[in-house]
Amino acid sequence: MPLHAHLNTFAGNPLDRAADRRRDPAWLAERLRGEARVLALWNGAPLLGPDDRLASVEPDLARQLSGEGERLLFLGLDGGTAVFALDLEGASDPSEGVLSGRGAFANLRDFAGRGEEDELGLAATAKAIFEWRRRHRFCSACGQASEVAEAGWKRICPACKVEHFPRTDPVVIMLPVCEERCLLGRQASWPPGRFSALAGFMEPGESIEAACAREIKEEAGLQVLSVSYHSSQPWPFPANLMIGLIAEVAPGEARPEDAELEAVRWLTRDETRRAIAGEGEVGLPPPLAIARRLIEHWAD
Amino acid sequence: MPLHAHLNTFAGNPLDRAADRRRDPAWLAERLRGEARVLALWNGAPLLGPDDRLASVEPDLARQLSGEGERLLFLGLDGGTAVFALDLEGASDPSEGVLSGRGAFANLRDFAGRGEEDELGLAATAKAIFEWRRRHRFCSACGQASEVAEAGWKRICPACKVEHFPRTDPVVIMLPVCEERCLLGRQASWPPGRFSALAGFMEPGESIEAACAREIKEEAGLQVLSVSYHSSQPWPFPANLMIGLIAEVAPGEARPEDAELEAVRWLTRDETRRAIAGEGEVGLPPPLAIARRLIEHWAD
Repeated sequence: MPLHAHLNTFAGNPLDRAADRRRDPAWLAERLRGEARVLALWNGAPLLGPDDRLASVEPDLARQLSGEGERLLFLGLDGGTAVFALDLEGASDPSEGVLSGRGAFANLRDFAGRGEEDELGLAATAKAIFEWRRRHRFCSACGQASEVAEAGWKRICPACKVEHFPRTDPVVIMLPVCEERCLLGRQASWPPGRFSALAGFMEPGESIEAACAREIKEEAGLQVLSVSYHSSQPWPFPANLMIGLIAEVAPGEARPEDAELEAVRWLTRDETRRAIAGEGEVGLPPPLAIARRLIEHWAD
Repeated sequence: MPLHAHLNTFAGNPLDRAADRRRDPAWLAERLRGEARVLALWNGAPLLGPDDRLASVEPDLARQLSGEGERLLFLGLDGGTAVFALDLEGASDPSEGVLSGRGAFANLRDFAGRGEEDELGLAATAKAIFEWRRRHRFCSACGQASEVAEAGWKRICPACKVEHFPRTDPVVIMLPVCEERCLLGRQASWPPGRFSALAGFMEPGESIEAACAREIKEEAGLQVLSVSYHSSQPWPFPANLMIGLIAEVAPGEARPEDAELEAVRWLTRDETRRAIAGEGEVGLPPPLAIARRLIEHWAD
């Protein structure tokens, strides 16, 4: 399909990642003494200006707050401008302290409902890396504190020399369909009436197709006949890759087989279209979720 | 596409993973006192019997060697039989010691050229988990030694309580095509004449399609117009998910843009078919590689 035919929320990062520059400390330092744009996130929440767009921090201040680079990430090039992100953490809101007057921090899921594609892609990339950083300050091979490298994209253990790269967890998310009906599932923690596609983390030793078949068997007791790939989405909560699929299943009784779902429900195409229109008793996830894109695609 | 239309090597694990049983220590212990089948791997190499098939270790011996479960993995159910794998490591070959008389350990890549689909899938799953275990004995969040849980599928930090799950790294692997030609690349370390598809690790904040476009730009300087998903493959060296794609690219001069490739080369469909037949000067990867499946698919 054309490259941006199914552009899911968070997939719109427009930067040239310029990965070779990550290994060029002199060039990076020069940018931070010049015209660099530095975004800021506080515990994963992006800093927004009064115009409700991503706000910037002065490069000088960012260098002061960067912990000798530990908290700084080189995101890439926007034309000729280097773009960085600064990882702030802790209990006290920096927008009421060291970043006073520069905007306010917003929950990324909330911002995703109204932000522009480019900005959501930038924020998602930075959040995913920073979540990884916060859970990987120590070497998993030997237990020593690791050190940042390559402008935030790598960590190296000074003791055993093992290199650690950001982690992305692949997740299959799929719409089971059979004889003009699709199957949706519901988790107990969701808002009343909400149903969505089925999903689960992939495991070692699985293809995408095998993971899809296993999850549908586990969660709904149905047998998968065929799998079609639809699109994919980076999902920075904390760092997943959502792989969107339509799965043809054999006729059978669908029932929640494990503790994941409290209910499953078949919808006809008409019922699905009504749910998309916001009518009827079934509520769907918001447009930022790839699950909704799968459901809309099938309903069309 | 039908579920097993493109069954790549290592994707044929036939077990019911029976994930709920991972959390049932009494049931697992009972199996290990009974008829369980226990495979063995030494530094990632599976134990093969004289018939060149996966060999088993007696459950009693496996329990003795399991380090109180640290080295043992519950793979799933084969019909009514529980299947486990035992992780052996170190410099001295256990088949000349504690496992004498039970077979010999074989490099998994070599075995992949001749083993049966089911057996390769089992060995790949066990190897991926054990490679993860060896690189994740310590909690990446706080540095303390972590402990095995859920029959090998999880580790828990006794200090900070963070749970750690096996890591799988998504990789895009793609064949760029343009006007009846496909583009292959060559790494300097490969055998003389060998060319293959392009590939690279996905990064946080990327869709599959965006990663494909970035890698082709980085490695060959070409612009991607559209991306089609082909199939996927678990690749246990150490624990990748290969996502196979065909990418239509805009006409342009292809050239190695970074240090990854030493050469790129356009092949017509006829030249590609000759390479598949083993004729001409271009050599292709072996059938176990998804890259070859992509090339064969396009040539057809």
